[in-house]
Amino acid sequence: MTFQNQLSFAQTLDARDDLAVFRDEFVIDDPDMIYLDGNSLGRLPRRTVDYMHQAITKGWGQRLIRVWNDGWYHTPTELGAKIAKLVGAQDDELLVADATSTNLFKLAIAALRARPDRTKIVSDVFNFPSDLYVLQGIIDLLGRQHRLELIPSPDTITIDPQAVRAAIDRDTALVSLSHVAFKSAFMYDMAAVTKLVHQAGALMLWDLSHSVGAVPIDLNECGADLAIGCTYKYLNGGPGAPAFLYVRRALQTELNQPMWGWFAAENPFAFDLDFRPAKDISRYKVGTPPMLSMKAIEPALDILLEADVGRLRTKSVQQTDYLIYLAEQWLTPLGFGLGSPRQAKIRGSHVSLRHDEAYRINRALIEAEPPAVKVIPDFREPDNIRLGIAPLYTSFTDIHRAMARLRTIVAERIYEQYSAERLAVT
Amino acid sequence: MTFQNQLSFAQTLDARDDLAVFRDEFVIDDPDMIYLDGNSLGRLPRRTVDYMHQAITKGWGQRLIRVWNDGWYHTPTELGAKIAKLVGAQDDELLVADATSTNLFKLAIAALRARPDRTKIVSDVFNFPSDLYVLQGIIDLLGRQHRLELIPSPDTITIDPQAVRAAIDRDTALVSLSHVAFKSAFMYDMAAVTKLVHQAGALMLWDLSHSVGAVPIDLNECGADLAIGCTYKYLNGGPGAPAFLYVRRALQTELNQPMWGWFAAENPFAFDLDFRPAKDISRYKVGTPPMLSMKAIEPALDILLEADVGRLRTKSVQQTDYLIYLAEQWLTPLGFGLGSPRQAKIRGSHVSLRHDEAYRINRALIEAEPPAVKVIPDFREPDNIRLGIAPLYTSFTDIHRAMARLRTIVAERIYEQYSAERLAVT
Repeated sequence: MTFQNQLSFAQTLDARDDLAVFRDEFVIDDPDMIYLDGNSLGRLPRRTVDYMHQAITKGWGQRLIRVWNDGWYHTPTELGAKIAKLVGAQDDELLVADATSTNLFKLAIAALRARPDRTKIVSDVFNFPSDLYVLQGIIDLLGRQHRLELIPSPDTITIDPQAVRAAIDRDTALVSLSHVAFKSAFMYDMAAVTKLVHQAGALMLWDLSHSVGAVPIDLNECGADLAIGCTYKYLNGGPGAPAFLYVRRALQTELNQPMWGWFAAENPFAFDLDFRPAKDISRYKVGTPPMLSMKAIEPALDILLEADVGRLRTKSVQQTDYLIYLAEQWLTPLGFGLGSPRQAKIRGSHVSLRHDEAYRINRALIEAEPPAVKVIPDFREPDNIRLGIAPLYTSFTDIHRAMARLRTIVAERIYEQYSAERLAVT
Repeated sequence: MTFQNQLSFAQTLDARDDLAVFRDEFVIDDPDMIYLDGNSLGRLPRRTVDYMHQAITKGWGQRLIRVWNDGWYHTPTELGAKIAKLVGAQDDELLVADATSTNLFKLAIAALRARPDRTKIVSDVFNFPSDLYVLQGIIDLLGRQHRLELIPSPDTITIDPQAVRAAIDRDTALVSLSHVAFKSAFMYDMAAVTKLVHQAGALMLWDLSHSVGAVPIDLNECGADLAIGCTYKYLNGGPGAPAFLYVRRALQTELNQPMWGWFAAENPFAFDLDFRPAKDISRYKVGTPPMLSMKAIEPALDILLEADVGRLRTKSVQQTDYLIYLAEQWLTPLGFGLGSPRQAKIRGSHVSLRHDEAYRINRALIEAEPPAVKVIPDFREPDNIRLGIAPLYTSFTDIHRAMARLRTIVAERIYEQYSAERLAVT
């Protein structure tokens, strides 16, 4: 598509957008706040508000302990079955539980124990730091018999397939990568990498946090062994909503995850003194799940399933392409560089723009006062402004207004009023 | 106190109860449903309903990602500081995070690594099975160099202090016990046991799930090293609400917990590729916390702090004594036995009553239809009906009505209409 830089062009694209109706599914009460951080924390679905009120007052308040027998006990696997449809998995291969980091801990240890003669874990310099930290902690825990090798990036934006091939060998037990990189949005060819990993006899674990709900994924088709992911980004499950994990069916009883909490037992309510693991995906649970945060995921997933990830991806590509088009027209002359791949095929649903003053520019976007429009992206060290496209509710007009505002902030040096001192969460 | 078995006596006790006002703090909309399972899932505080509506619509819905900088980032330690007041700890020694089982996993591994030359873990046959499972999983993970020794019970109700002494020796790395046993409500002398453990050079970990909020606890006074506990029982935090953990200040930087998630890092938002642990209690965090479940704990804790645990314990002892008095008058002749200690000093805030038909009797209590009163305790294998006293909202009249109903169900053999087939959650 050939883009144009007038606001009217953005409005035309919105008018033609089949998915535009989904924007009404979300609580958007400030027309002058443009939210481009759905890749970090998704918006609140309207239907979630009443759903949670019912869950709290009827589920907890009236039903009390009986609510577990009313169906809440099965919520983690029921939500798992819904997410399975988004990632090309079987209903019984997915589970919502714990935090993404905790799920990585469980699955990575299980994988290493399944390859006892191999000592290498492969990841890359783009992986979300928490994933790397968890792997480092596992190596420390297991007596430093393993080592972590990070695939380098030639350009801080992409990873060279040759470098992936070079890192994976017969000593590799586990390859653990983010499908879409949190900073640059670089996206791996999941099928190609998984194939390489299997050829080397290693296990493949994908972190889908930055792709699920925005990019079509087919874990079964790729033969992926393990996956984890986040529900509070494109899935709109709410702040810190429990994460998910996937274990290929054939591996479920073969692997031994180390956290033997009672919800992983075959029959938790028998209260036996000896652990017997469940024979299905439930063996990857640990303790009692945080049900209010868990319930909030449910209505949000329904919206995604109604919208269809394939259609969302088409819109997302169009929108990120459009954003990059405007950036090249308006921002490159002002000192901005592109921190994401130019080619949509290897790019997720956010775009990073770089600038030496990125932190202060980001603050100027967020802290704007009327009549200026407020724009909320986020900042990632050292110089990235991440602009997240959530095609369920991001409009082309949003993108146009945000990019115009960015131009103004830099052209008029508005950012100079702001401090570069880091806030706790940025 | 000398008890009487007329309803009017119960009503008189309620009228004289200074804590009775707190009952109004909770959503209690069915006067003919008597809830005696607050030891499993606490009731919904009235103030939580609006608090959560605000957290969802304003916190998540309007503030979106900015809510973390509005204070939510510090909620886990702020809630920890409140719970610290209930358990005799310093504000900076407690944290709300993850599930109880996950916290045990982290702390028990940290403890074992701090005693590398010792191979024994001591627990008891009363510990909550999930705790035993987690310890079994750790032993499996660490190459079966450790063994778990369970202190036996002479009578299935109590533990003999001599048996505790006999189990702990110079090879003991860690002693992990529930302060109050989930089934019999047996309560340890925390100070005496902790002293024994320290004399042997081992580390002491208390699971406070069944005592916190109902029994005064002084971790600092006892010199306890580690503790974990649940917030959804007497603390009324909501179904599966995140658990807490305590690490004695002097041990916080000495111990090495194995789950190096980003929230455990000194500066998570620097996104460094190498993990550097926080130098305070935050190093025992893992991933992003489930904030809706986390926020629900806050108003509930305020009620407990207003009521004062010392006063709650006085009422709880009176109420459990009263319940046992009625059981001995009415139920012993019908085949019931007492499954909890008779002596309040070694008993928590619930009472187990045993009967060969306990499962069916429990179902008859729960599934009663009007005009019969519905009573909700819970069942624990093989023959225990657990009657939980939550002194914040349980009245003496509740106890009188529940015990009278129990008598009727057994005397009139009403339970024979019910199946003994187990439901998923009981």
